Amino acid sequence: MSKILIKDSYILTMASSTNEKPVIGDILIEDNVITKIGKFECTEQVEIIDGKNTIALPGLINCHTHAAMTLLRGYADDMELMPWLENKIWPREAKLTEEHIYWGSMLACLEMIKSGTTTFADMYVSMNEVAKAVSDSGIRASLSRGITGGNGRGEDSLKESKEFIEKWRNEERITCMLGPHAPYTCTDDYLEKIIKLGKELNVGIHIHLAETETEFSDIEKRTGKTPVEHMKDLGLFELPVLAAHCVHLTEGDIGILKENNVAVAHNPESNLKLASGIAPVPELLEKGVIVGLGTDGAASNNNLNMFEEMHMAALLHKANSKNPTVIPAYQALEMGTILGAKALGLDQEIGSLEVGKKADIILLDLHKAHLYPSHDIVANIIYSAQGSDVKTSIINGNIVMKDRKILAFDEEKVILEANRVAKELMKD
Amino acid sequence: MSKILIKDSYILTMASSTNEKPVIGDILIEDNVITKIGKFECTEQVEIIDGKNTIALPGLINCHTHAAMTLLRGYADDMELMPWLENKIWPREAKLTEEHIYWGSMLACLEMIKSGTTTFADMYVSMNEVAKAVSDSGIRASLSRGITGGNGRGEDSLKESKEFIEKWRNEERITCMLGPHAPYTCTDDYLEKIIKLGKELNVGIHIHLAETETEFSDIEKRTGKTPVEHMKDLGLFELPVLAAHCVHLTEGDIGILKENNVAVAHNPESNLKLASGIAPVPELLEKGVIVGLGTDGAASNNNLNMFEEMHMAALLHKANSKNPTVIPAYQALEMGTILGAKALGLDQEIGSLEVGKKADIILLDLHKAHLYPSHDIVANIIYSAQGSDVKTSIINGNIVMKDRKILAFDEEKVILEANRVAKELMKD
Repeated sequence: MSKILIKDSYILTMASSTNEKPVIGDILIEDNVITKIGKFECTEQVEIIDGKNTIALPGLINCHTHAAMTLLRGYADDMELMPWLENKIWPREAKLTEEHIYWGSMLACLEMIKSGTTTFADMYVSMNEVAKAVSDSGIRASLSRGITGGNGRGEDSLKESKEFIEKWRNEERITCMLGPHAPYTCTDDYLEKIIKLGKELNVGIHIHLAETETEFSDIEKRTGKTPVEHMKDLGLFELPVLAAHCVHLTEGDIGILKENNVAVAHNPESNLKLASGIAPVPELLEKGVIVGLGTDGAASNNNLNMFEEMHMAALLHKANSKNPTVIPAYQALEMGTILGAKALGLDQEIGSLEVGKKADIILLDLHKAHLYPSHDIVANIIYSAQGSDVKTSIINGNIVMKDRKILAFDEEKVILEANRVAKELMKD
Repeated sequence: MSKILIKDSYILTMASSTNEKPVIGDILIEDNVITKIGKFECTEQVEIIDGKNTIALPGLINCHTHAAMTLLRGYADDMELMPWLENKIWPREAKLTEEHIYWGSMLACLEMIKSGTTTFADMYVSMNEVAKAVSDSGIRASLSRGITGGNGRGEDSLKESKEFIEKWRNEERITCMLGPHAPYTCTDDYLEKIIKLGKELNVGIHIHLAETETEFSDIEKRTGKTPVEHMKDLGLFELPVLAAHCVHLTEGDIGILKENNVAVAHNPESNLKLASGIAPVPELLEKGVIVGLGTDGAASNNNLNMFEEMHMAALLHKANSKNPTVIPAYQALEMGTILGAKALGLDQEIGSLEVGKKADIILLDLHKAHLYPSHDIVANIIYSAQGSDVKTSIINGNIVMKDRKILAFDEEKVILEANRVAKELMKD
């Protein structure tokens, strides 16, 4: 049995719903589980990680991304949504091979680990390749094959989704969901098939919902309902649902999300960059809706750095609601950790540092000019820290990165191969 | 004469007003000046900096901060503005000694250099200490003693401002301005005295302007004018003016700023965090107003990382104006470099990489997972990079940081001393 002892770090467990103050202590990890936290004598044979000048946090949880889109980072920016999709993103995506998806996902996993993410929720194509990248990189993920369809289209991808889930759902570090892309890319019939399959397989749903004004008004025109009302009436919310974006919501919609335990993946940077708008996050949190954070794909962000999303969530909604007290630092950190775990239905296993939970732990290096003085370490994490302050990352009890060096795989090879396939993808 | 050759880096000069593409080349620095850029043979005795896998950019220019407020980083957050100021910030500021200001400013200089800033515009008290920190750290700055007054108050600080300017204005790397705090903390009489002194000393003005709704409505109530109109009518704009914030502007105000060559220091993160609002930056730029970027003090940000401000400026205004094409990446980088130099009246010397300009150059390490692939290096700098990607910083021809190690001063000592005085400041 492998045993690791993190010694003398600050510890912020995120297990408390009230403002927790970090205290110095030790964490014992046996195999993939946290077995002790606090002050204790350890006489066992353990691998010691010196935690001095660091703080141990639950690994960050990226609740919505499309990992392989790292290959399109910086390929097209500062454009209107439809020309961006139609002339730039979709034509390149149509050319993606399995090899592209694998290396693009590996690059994403590398970037996420380097900036403190230990779990991500992904929706894309060729998901076997994404699952292989998750397996090879040591990260944890909730994976869904993104599907669109109706009027005869989409039967293949439904079948593929089912096969994917059956193949990977019992793998270490992997959980699966069904991934209907959005209310406007799936017909009602098709969504009903997905709901039926979800119940049969006993899995949740990962969907884009209420992202743009256009989606809102198109669905309203077609059905007389908001996108959220329409999804409820179709029965989607009978399953556990992770709804990405939720920018355009009525007050009634917020009530529906709460009543049906729908979790929201808030993607502030992507919503700003694509000019989708600003989601009513303080109102969602006020009503008790679970809100996690996501980066969205690198093409609309353009990175997978969860420190930026926590930072942005804490800043943006203050000005937007003209109230500097909304989303205080501790709550932003909850959104990046335990609320993210709840959004993915994984809070029994991850999202906080507690005895019995999986050992997904990051150590943040506090010895940086921008993290002094340390009047309030939590405020420093949210308002001052950078992703590069993450020093060490342990996922499922394995030391995936130590002192910023990746131990789980060859990072230079990942950069080289991802760069190679990205160039290939750009050839006309 | 010292000679430095940066070899084989990408170079982005920011000398062009149209989208410039980075090209690989060399830069020769002789003493404190750039003497050659491009492809050339260099047979001279030079110190070579290997630029491979980096991009050379003009050093970033932080157009508005209060450096010593690093000591209050994380001391009070997520609060309403007036209780924050009255119960937290002002009581601690009242206890600041010269020693506090010096070490707080040194910590700020350290943090700024580490995140790519080579020039900052500061407004605070005990400015001799700030000037010493500028001198000791190797950074460049435009300094102003922040003053408030009227009804008999403020004569001392006027005198102090004058003495400060006369003492420091001819020092290497230092320029000076007068620093009336704001229209609501200086009476009209007092502002008129400041204008007179500014003309006598031939210096510009650094002022907070139109930051909050309260300021806007209070000035309107008192004078029947907007803050911008009121400042114009008092004659303030007869001097070169750097106006921080400018969140609350009418269309007429924007015209006045343009006609009078008033430069704006946009502080997006501070404006969000304090819930001041969102400045109409696309409209200002559209009208041709010079807009630079600033972090504001660390108490309301909470860091001095200009990569975050460029990133935020490029993201925020897209959603706010419902237009994803506003403030494209290249323009955000202009705001962080050449427009900042123009805002400080220093564009003859700094802000772009051109032969004859001062050698204020940063090298960004492009060999990072989050900066691959490199379809568009400028987009990667604005949307994906972190402050910690800055590898090397040259200011006024001196290598202040190389491979992230500070050469110009003892960074461990700065952290130690700043932390010590910050703790002292918190004692009741």
